[in-house]
Amino acid sequence: MRRVVVSGVGMTKVDQHFDRGMRDLFKEAVVKALEDSGNPNVNHFYVSNAYGSLISDQADLGPFLLDYAGCGCTPVTQIGGACGAGGYAIMEGFEAVASGKSDIVLVAGVEKMSDIPTKQVTSVQSTCMDQEYEVNYGLTLAGINAMAARSYMQEYSATREQLALFAVQMHKNAMKNPYACLPFEVTTDKVIESFPIADPLTFLDSAPACDGSAAVVLTTPEIAQKLTDTVAEVAGVCQSIDNVSISERGSLLTMKSTVEAAEKAYNMAGVRPNEIGVCEIHDAFTITGFIALEDLSLVERGKAGIAVEEGIIAKDGKIPTNPSGGLKARGHPGGATGIYQIAEITQQLRGEAGGTQVEGAEIGLTHNISGFGSGATVGILKRYA
Amino acid sequence: MRRVVVSGVGMTKVDQHFDRGMRDLFKEAVVKALEDSGNPNVNHFYVSNAYGSLISDQADLGPFLLDYAGCGCTPVTQIGGACGAGGYAIMEGFEAVASGKSDIVLVAGVEKMSDIPTKQVTSVQSTCMDQEYEVNYGLTLAGINAMAARSYMQEYSATREQLALFAVQMHKNAMKNPYACLPFEVTTDKVIESFPIADPLTFLDSAPACDGSAAVVLTTPEIAQKLTDTVAEVAGVCQSIDNVSISERGSLLTMKSTVEAAEKAYNMAGVRPNEIGVCEIHDAFTITGFIALEDLSLVERGKAGIAVEEGIIAKDGKIPTNPSGGLKARGHPGGATGIYQIAEITQQLRGEAGGTQVEGAEIGLTHNISGFGSGATVGILKRYA
Repeated sequence: MRRVVVSGVGMTKVDQHFDRGMRDLFKEAVVKALEDSGNPNVNHFYVSNAYGSLISDQADLGPFLLDYAGCGCTPVTQIGGACGAGGYAIMEGFEAVASGKSDIVLVAGVEKMSDIPTKQVTSVQSTCMDQEYEVNYGLTLAGINAMAARSYMQEYSATREQLALFAVQMHKNAMKNPYACLPFEVTTDKVIESFPIADPLTFLDSAPACDGSAAVVLTTPEIAQKLTDTVAEVAGVCQSIDNVSISERGSLLTMKSTVEAAEKAYNMAGVRPNEIGVCEIHDAFTITGFIALEDLSLVERGKAGIAVEEGIIAKDGKIPTNPSGGLKARGHPGGATGIYQIAEITQQLRGEAGGTQVEGAEIGLTHNISGFGSGATVGILKRYA
Repeated sequence: MRRVVVSGVGMTKVDQHFDRGMRDLFKEAVVKALEDSGNPNVNHFYVSNAYGSLISDQADLGPFLLDYAGCGCTPVTQIGGACGAGGYAIMEGFEAVASGKSDIVLVAGVEKMSDIPTKQVTSVQSTCMDQEYEVNYGLTLAGINAMAARSYMQEYSATREQLALFAVQMHKNAMKNPYACLPFEVTTDKVIESFPIADPLTFLDSAPACDGSAAVVLTTPEIAQKLTDTVAEVAGVCQSIDNVSISERGSLLTMKSTVEAAEKAYNMAGVRPNEIGVCEIHDAFTITGFIALEDLSLVERGKAGIAVEEGIIAKDGKIPTNPSGGLKARGHPGGATGIYQIAEITQQLRGEAGGTQVEGAEIGLTHNISGFGSGATVGILKRYA
């Protein structure tokens, strides 16, 4: 296995880009990432997307995106997997470089979710669930998360305010992130009183579905050194899956996919959870963030609410979580989210994260799931030395 | 680069499986392929699918399919790319083994197209085109192929009967294939007189959209030898892309993606076109088959019609083409088609193709495209020695 570094990143603002299409966003992110990495010759492109065929009626995204971006006929692989597509693609790109299959790969995610009425987003996102065993009975992704929230509060005597406080923290973080979709302040009252999505979760407990594209260039340290001097090492990326239908799961308070992927990734990177200096985790809803913190062994089981209250997940806390604002406030552009996370942690480890910078971050973690943890990808990045 | 062999194949019948879902089909193909290859421990699954989110509302296919098939939490990558997804996935799986990234991979394609009314198939398939530059103006995939057919006939003085004769040959082949969707005889008159899809192309010029799943196990010769003794070597797999929109192309009578992918694959395998003893090409429409034969340098430019007339593409002809019946008559289960082709050519090279067997086939070719050649993957397989 060769060492793998991120040698360049590019992102668009996460937003409702009514005036731009998928390929415009993709091109912006890819051009930025290529420039940031010294414009190398890419051997293979990996493109992640969750809902392009459902929302934009575009199913063959490799040629569609690469042609417009002017990337010629480099081989391209389109990777799906709903909201976890970005993580899956990162793993594929990482393994391509690590194994010697490719010297330089570009992994880019793109999603355009604002081209449909908001009410349709629920049905689009439910394609990450089991239609026959769940959706046909009326269950939604928000519904599963709401059940998990109720269950969590009862099991661990957690409070509604603690969940809301997670959202408050994420919005606070997003205010320093120029790429964030929702860079404004909210209060716990505002979160709890915003309109209900699936009780107890409200609009402000939920990540906004929005548009964006992010790209990263992965290569070996030796190749990167010739082109740029600001890299971050990808020390481990692992994936695991679980039953799609929650009816087959033992608990709503943990995701086996995250637990297993994290264990493998920590081992691969030779890192312990308490060494993580910054993380970008998959908080599609506030409760999802709680479960992630615990499944990743960053916070003790059942203590996420207290950790949030005590400021542990704040930017200057013990476990700086989602300095970008996370899915909750940076925004959640579906299959691009997992790539944003890698780009953001790379900037953190390079010390180039601007207003979102966590001082002295040496080791970072990324965590991207599909559905309610049907699949999970966990990445561990290190400052390159 | 390590040598790569196909050590096992599995297929379901291509059909309208109204009584079975995607995961049932997938499981049947995967179990068969695993058994056929001596039940190895698979390191990585690649799953190809074109329209699962549009037709079955399932977007996160890795966990969805693997869980049901009982394949645990082996890493899985879901690969898209419309009707070319199978080819893209084969290339990814091949490279995984060739590079040493994985020792044993399983590449499976699955598609379920019969769960929507036939009239909706046109709009689903048009997601492989450019919505903004083509589909919004009323163009369909059949429409592009019809324009190509008109243009072909005019440019090369080809006849309508020659196109129909291609379909006749495919149906004749399919009658010997137990997995074929349309194993019945047609005549040129019947093809020409069947109802028009996009003039001059009729219903019987067109591949049926149907259901099916195919799986292949790829590994190294050394590993395969311990588990089975019937393998075929994958000597080369290459991909190329083109503009999605035909408005950006120079000609409708050639696909740059196929030409480039073929050239690369021939070079990689060290094989010349005249050495191909059997091929499975992408004949979504009769005209698409003509263009493929020429772009793959199997038939001289403009001579496909004559080649068909002279029986050159027949099972006992000089260039046995689609002994399975091809997309036209075996059927075209979207993202699974490219995997069927690899499975079929493997059976040919093993001498286990039953009634479809081409005597003495030593080298085979597969050709899978997305859209009207937005992307193409060409594979060259050899009898293993």
